[in-house]
Amino acid sequence: MDDALAAALLAEDFAGADLTTETLALSGRPGRITFSARAACVVAGVELAERMLTLAGVAVARRRASGERVAPGDLLLSGEGDARALHAGWKSAQTLVEALSGIATAARAIVDAAEAVDAQVRVACTRKTFPGARRLSQAAVKAGGAILHRADLSETILVFPEHLAFLGDASLAEVAATLRRRAPEKKPAIEVGSVAAAQAAIEAGFEIVQLEKFSAADVAAVAAFARRRRPAPLIAAAGGVNAGNAADYVRAGAGLLVTSAPYSAPPCDVQVRIAPL
Amino acid sequence: MDDALAAALLAEDFAGADLTTETLALSGRPGRITFSARAACVVAGVELAERMLTLAGVAVARRRASGERVAPGDLLLSGEGDARALHAGWKSAQTLVEALSGIATAARAIVDAAEAVDAQVRVACTRKTFPGARRLSQAAVKAGGAILHRADLSETILVFPEHLAFLGDASLAEVAATLRRRAPEKKPAIEVGSVAAAQAAIEAGFEIVQLEKFSAADVAAVAAFARRRRPAPLIAAAGGVNAGNAADYVRAGAGLLVTSAPYSAPPCDVQVRIAPL
Amino acid sequence: MDDALAAALLAEDFAGADLTTETLALSGRPGRITFSARAACVVAGVELAERMLTLAGVAVARRRASGERVAPGDLLLSGEGDARALHAGWKSAQTLVEALSGIATAARAIVDAAEAVDAQVRVACTRKTFPGARRLSQAAVKAGGAILHRADLSETILVFPEHLAFLGDASLAEVAATLRRRAPEKKPAIEVGSVAAAQAAIEAGFEIVQLEKFSAADVAAVAAFARRRRPAPLIAAAGGVNAGNAADYVRAGAGLLVTSAPYSAPPCDVQVRIAPL
Amino acid sequence: MDDALAAALLAEDFAGADLTTETLALSGRPGRITFSARAACVVAGVELAERMLTLAGVAVARRRASGERVAPGDLLLSGEGDARALHAGWKSAQTLVEALSGIATAARAIVDAAEAVDAQVRVACTRKTFPGARRLSQAAVKAGGAILHRADLSETILVFPEHLAFLGDASLAEVAATLRRRAPEKKPAIEVGSVAAAQAAIEAGFEIVQLEKFSAADVAAVAAFARRRRPAPLIAAAGGVNAGNAADYVRAGAGLLVTSAPYSAPPCDVQVRIAPL
Amino acid sequence: MDDALAAALLAEDFAGADLTTETLALSGRPGRITFSARAACVVAGVELAERMLTLAGVAVARRRASGERVAPGDLLLSGEGDARALHAGWKSAQTLVEALSGIATAARAIVDAAEAVDAQVRVACTRKTFPGARRLSQAAVKAGGAILHRADLSETILVFPEHLAFLGDASLAEVAATLRRRAPEKKPAIEVGSVAAAQAAIEAGFEIVQLEKFSAADVAAVAAFARRRRPAPLIAAAGGVNAGNAADYVRAGAGLLVTSAPYSAPPCDVQVRIAPL
Amino acid sequence: MDDALAAALLAEDFAGADLTTETLALSGRPGRITFSARAACVVAGVELAERMLTLAGVAVARRRASGERVAPGDLLLSGEGDARALHAGWKSAQTLVEALSGIATAARAIVDAAEAVDAQVRVACTRKTFPGARRLSQAAVKAGGAILHRADLSETILVFPEHLAFLGDASLAEVAATLRRRAPEKKPAIEVGSVAAAQAAIEAGFEIVQLEKFSAADVAAVAAFARRRRPAPLIAAAGGVNAGNAADYVRAGAGLLVTSAPYSAPPCDVQVRIAPL
Repeated sequence: MDDALAAALLAEDFAGADLTTETLALSGRPGRITFSARAACVVAGVELAERMLTLAGVAVARRRASGERVAPGDLLLSGEGDARALHAGWKSAQTLVEALSGIATAARAIVDAAEAVDAQVRVACTRKTFPGARRLSQAAVKAGGAILHRADLSETILVFPEHLAFLGDASLAEVAATLRRRAPEKKPAIEVGSVAAAQAAIEAGFEIVQLEKFSAADVAAVAAFARRRRPAPLIAAAGGVNAGNAADYVRAGAGLLVTSAPYSAPPCDVQVRIAPL
Repeated sequence: MDDALAAALLAEDFAGADLTTETLALSGRPGRITFSARAACVVAGVELAERMLTLAGVAVARRRASGERVAPGDLLLSGEGDARALHAGWKSAQTLVEALSGIATAARAIVDAAEAVDAQVRVACTRKTFPGARRLSQAAVKAGGAILHRADLSETILVFPEHLAFLGDASLAEVAATLRRRAPEKKPAIEVGSVAAAQAAIEAGFEIVQLEKFSAADVAAVAAFARRRRPAPLIAAAGGVNAGNAADYVRAGAGLLVTSAPYSAPPCDVQVRIAPL
Repeated sequence: MDDALAAALLAEDFAGADLTTETLALSGRPGRITFSARAACVVAGVELAERMLTLAGVAVARRRASGERVAPGDLLLSGEGDARALHAGWKSAQTLVEALSGIATAARAIVDAAEAVDAQVRVACTRKTFPGARRLSQAAVKAGGAILHRADLSETILVFPEHLAFLGDASLAEVAATLRRRAPEKKPAIEVGSVAAAQAAIEAGFEIVQLEKFSAADVAAVAAFARRRRPAPLIAAAGGVNAGNAADYVRAGAGLLVTSAPYSAPPCDVQVRIAPL
Repeated sequence: MDDALAAALLAEDFAGADLTTETLALSGRPGRITFSARAACVVAGVELAERMLTLAGVAVARRRASGERVAPGDLLLSGEGDARALHAGWKSAQTLVEALSGIATAARAIVDAAEAVDAQVRVACTRKTFPGARRLSQAAVKAGGAILHRADLSETILVFPEHLAFLGDASLAEVAATLRRRAPEKKPAIEVGSVAAAQAAIEAGFEIVQLEKFSAADVAAVAAFARRRRPAPLIAAAGGVNAGNAADYVRAGAGLLVTSAPYSAPPCDVQVRIAPL
Repeated sequence: MDDALAAALLAEDFAGADLTTETLALSGRPGRITFSARAACVVAGVELAERMLTLAGVAVARRRASGERVAPGDLLLSGEGDARALHAGWKSAQTLVEALSGIATAARAIVDAAEAVDAQVRVACTRKTFPGARRLSQAAVKAGGAILHRADLSETILVFPEHLAFLGDASLAEVAATLRRRAPEKKPAIEVGSVAAAQAAIEAGFEIVQLEKFSAADVAAVAAFARRRRPAPLIAAAGGVNAGNAADYVRAGAGLLVTSAPYSAPPCDVQVRIAPL
Repeated sequence: MDDALAAALLAEDFAGADLTTETLALSGRPGRITFSARAACVVAGVELAERMLTLAGVAVARRRASGERVAPGDLLLSGEGDARALHAGWKSAQTLVEALSGIATAARAIVDAAEAVDAQVRVACTRKTFPGARRLSQAAVKAGGAILHRADLSETILVFPEHLAFLGDASLAEVAATLRRRAPEKKPAIEVGSVAAAQAAIEAGFEIVQLEKFSAADVAAVAAFARRRRPAPLIAAAGGVNAGNAADYVRAGAGLLVTSAPYSAPPCDVQVRIAPL
């Protein structure tokens, strides 16, 4: 059910014609295309790349699966087709695999760092994806072993200070109670910016408390406070979380890492070879 | 004529509802939203952000224009509306301005570096944009002062070694002559990987010779060779060009810098404040 | 941001022309259109109807808001425009308001019945909407005071017996623990078909237990069992819940009523009058 | 040519992921899905359901055809596929078959009632379908043996009193003559609300006279009047026609029954079973 | 409700940028655009051109209405805007008005020729429009005073010999009776290729008999035969009907002229002037 | 990757049903369809017609390729399928092949005329296609051996007098230099209306000079002037170029012919036969 997406991605690079291939009259000459990794990475987007190449007229012979870890030189995808088809799909498919694998690899690095400390802790990626690329980006972080924090505004309840500002003098406990009553199937979550605010949120009964740009030490303080409560709320570290500091946050007691970092990861380098048969 | 795009970007984050705002029943309370720069940057996407906020129900009061350089703290956009409208458009508009301004700022840095050496030299950005985000990304590099190398495959003729492989024993001169005859309104361009190949392309009559991953010294050798020809072909440096080496390539004699670097630039940091009126 | 939807709904009834109005050459004659309720109902869809009429060329003067309760004869919407515009939008707008108000009114009846017993209990409507009409239908039940059970498959975790069948001999407790670990921001929910299964699910640690087609007595048994646990899981009654039995289920201890009933409610009867000015 | 529709219907329930199936990691386990009727009904939508399941990745093995009458327990459709595919398509396909079969069954009941009296009389369904669901709904009534009254405003000429109000003092005969002259390939039709108005319309030369909310006795009076004219106009009974009164209207002399009733018929109950292979 | 169409037509000529205007940095300079007729014609498409220019950023000051007859030099539309906006909309709007006015003018010529003989006779244009341009083309023939023969396959019943070939030995009378019974709101129509076939169709009871590529003399023979029947069927002349022979066919007794000729009419010549303010 | 286009073209003629075929209950009867040329022509659109017929349910057995020259009676395409499928795709596919082959044939005639004089001279077709039909029309002229002048505004730089009017007193040489500097990968082109303007443009350094509505003699004067320059600019004859005068313009020294003439060529006549099997 991704054909419409595959067609749209091809069309981005192909407004009716491939002028070079057409002017050189390459049509009618069969060739082979191979995609291989230049560096170790976690593959993503390769199923969609297969759809794109297929729509362009390439018969795809082999491919890896999204989520697999590959080594330099590993073949990611290969296919055969008319020279015209090979060139029509080449760069679009390459750019897709490079961009999504870059995101997946970056997500995987954070997941690995977190799980090395505590295999129970998950990494959740935010909705701050490149505009117009949310679905692709979120598929990529999932290929890297992360989960989604919230797909969009309709999915979860997350109270920001900006919401509270409109609520006048309602207490945090009243807000939490309102949310629990009005949306009983959802866990009420809140983003806070200080240890004191975090403790207030925990006491008010929020089930998820998201700590925005906290030091590991401050996370530890909040986590200790949270553990005294039964059931303990989920403490999420957010804002600036990356592969370098993920372990620290997990050690400090964060039960969830929330991050946007993978979305701006550099593309993975994929080598594409095209040759006549 | 960007309303469909603005609506699509809003919809990415808003599949029918903003559950938090709705559950808190914030509708009916007026507020103000302001976007301001946290760091110096070149602004991009702010006109589209205005459309998005407008569609969401925010009355936009002031905004900067894409392409402007701003300093930390500068106001980028402000508006007023119902708390529901403010939250519906907030993150989508913020992410857009951050991502596109990041690209524009990165493009501007390369343009500035190149123009400091030779104001005639242009920076052309490739079509290796994030999949599904070509139009936005290309608008952003233009906001940064760059031009487009080729919008898509239909626009220019650029011969890669992969094309030549299908042409059997045709000489480069025959290829160039064929292109000139069949596409007389286009400049025949070719990508080469060595100084020798570049010289062969120049002798064959290509009007644009794109040097892929050349050192500045090798660019200088090709440029010197090219200048002997009347009219001299355009020498384009491509592959790994960035703000750090742009000046070197221009000094070496490149007449055009071709780069994909801005597309993976980190987002600019934009501070958004929302408050009741 | 509903203009595309409004245009699509108009186009359903207007494939290029209104042959009658055109053949009668009614264009150029101004008139007035009024929509009023023939029976007491909860209004829905009237904002979208306004957009449809506006796109058709009618200047809407007044309208009620979705969610309002109206009495027989109450004016819902009025506008003025060319006879051609009035006829182009008439039936599409009327059918929309009738269908959505029918759903809202039916949802409201269940909500009222539930809240009369316990104001804390919510009514959540399922995703079993008419195919192709989910967004409209879900907006209508919200206008009637209900919430959404799950907007679609991506939003919540709800384990059906059909899922369990694929999990081999994993215990329910293992399943619940897996869900809690892998999706820590979500409440694990399960649908069960017997009191014993419900008790097992509660003991396994599911936070929401959805009772499919239980008698009120059986709901009461499960609810009593659930109350012994700290924190008590949410007991949801589902399958056949309607305005007639909602109070019974709430009295039996259900904390949430899950229903699809409003989606097949009959349309509300709206009287439309069109007259020349 | 229904793939785009099938994809859209799937997407309504599947905004990027099936969180439950994914979190339970069910992918990779083959299973079987069967749809069977819980009650006697006329099947509709089953071809589109097959397309939906196919797009979701299910290999459909057998299915009935729209329009067939089935008995309780009859198999409607079966297929095999990965557990992930089975769950992705399950509810969307089920809801589709239930909703459309409900409409088809209701239409069939009216058709059967009418044809039992006079096999020449047709049942025509109106354009008052659920907003956004016209195409599906109209396919369903056709599966039930009904025809379409008018697909949309562009297809036929049907004069309402609301049109006449804009025509000043033109006589009905002048209106009919104008329509016949300007649209010579169409039968001029008119909706009337009283026996006197019906007789006037017949005398004016309308070829189809649609009686809105007439008693059977009044229909009989009009039909007797109409039969004196050569050729006799078509007398259509409309407004409140249903399976219970269809025979009466046919006996009274209606040559066509016009009804919206099937569109709000309750869904047929379809049992879906999913099990591992 | 034509904004989506207007945007699509603009986008056909504007894939992201107007490279010339942008490279010349014309933005920021106000100008005026005027469209005027170079020859007498019937105007069409000018309302849509206004929408296109408006979307492009031009403030349209005055315009004629579709269907008006204009003389050489008459102003069709004028507006003011930024040089960038003027150039963005220029050619798309001009080509639209030229193409549609060409069709309208050609349709008008046939209508005028027919009505000069008999003001009751209508000219109906077929569905053989340029692929992808049906809606625009049909609007244009209506602007020229013609009606639509059949908007598409769903609208009317028209039996071709190709249909009959599949019906085995069913008599024409049986076919006509079947159509009348199964589709009582439609006039059964048939296309025939000989006088004998036409007479047979008339005797069989078809209400519209479409004579494909008949001479005027043969049309006369059929018309005479038809007039003996009460009520007389509509005799439609089709196939090769144009402004030159329309009068002959009307004189011969055709009650309707069916033609595709206007759709391939040459564009009307429209002069566009753009100048700085 | 043309399935969406093929589906859209089918839908233009098929808003949900083929009423005639359905009312006659032709479904279930197999038949054959053949398309053959009634006159010599260059075929175009036949691959897309195959997609349309395939989507409609016809199994296409044989077809010619776009660009081939065919003689009267030559088979263009044949297929088999259910009578319902054959009728659903018939006219849409026929109209497509007729319209596009008409354009291709007209383009071929100009190309042949030009190449008979000088095989190096190309014919470039403009963007003045029928609104909404650009992609199809441009594919057709390419099937006829022509190239595209400019696909849209984003592709090439072409300065019109309307642009110059906004540039104040900038000299032509300054304009050309600006374009060369700002868009170094593009050939600066200009449209001129007089020999003097052409000479000025050549002296200013434009690489392509497009002569609008010049006589052959005036083209010759400009061409002679141009040949003195090294490298000589490309002289393009535009405005009124057709198959009758193409040879004259080539003899006069035009290096490129620019024409819109093929876009309004009459359709080629294609005979379609449908018969039961």
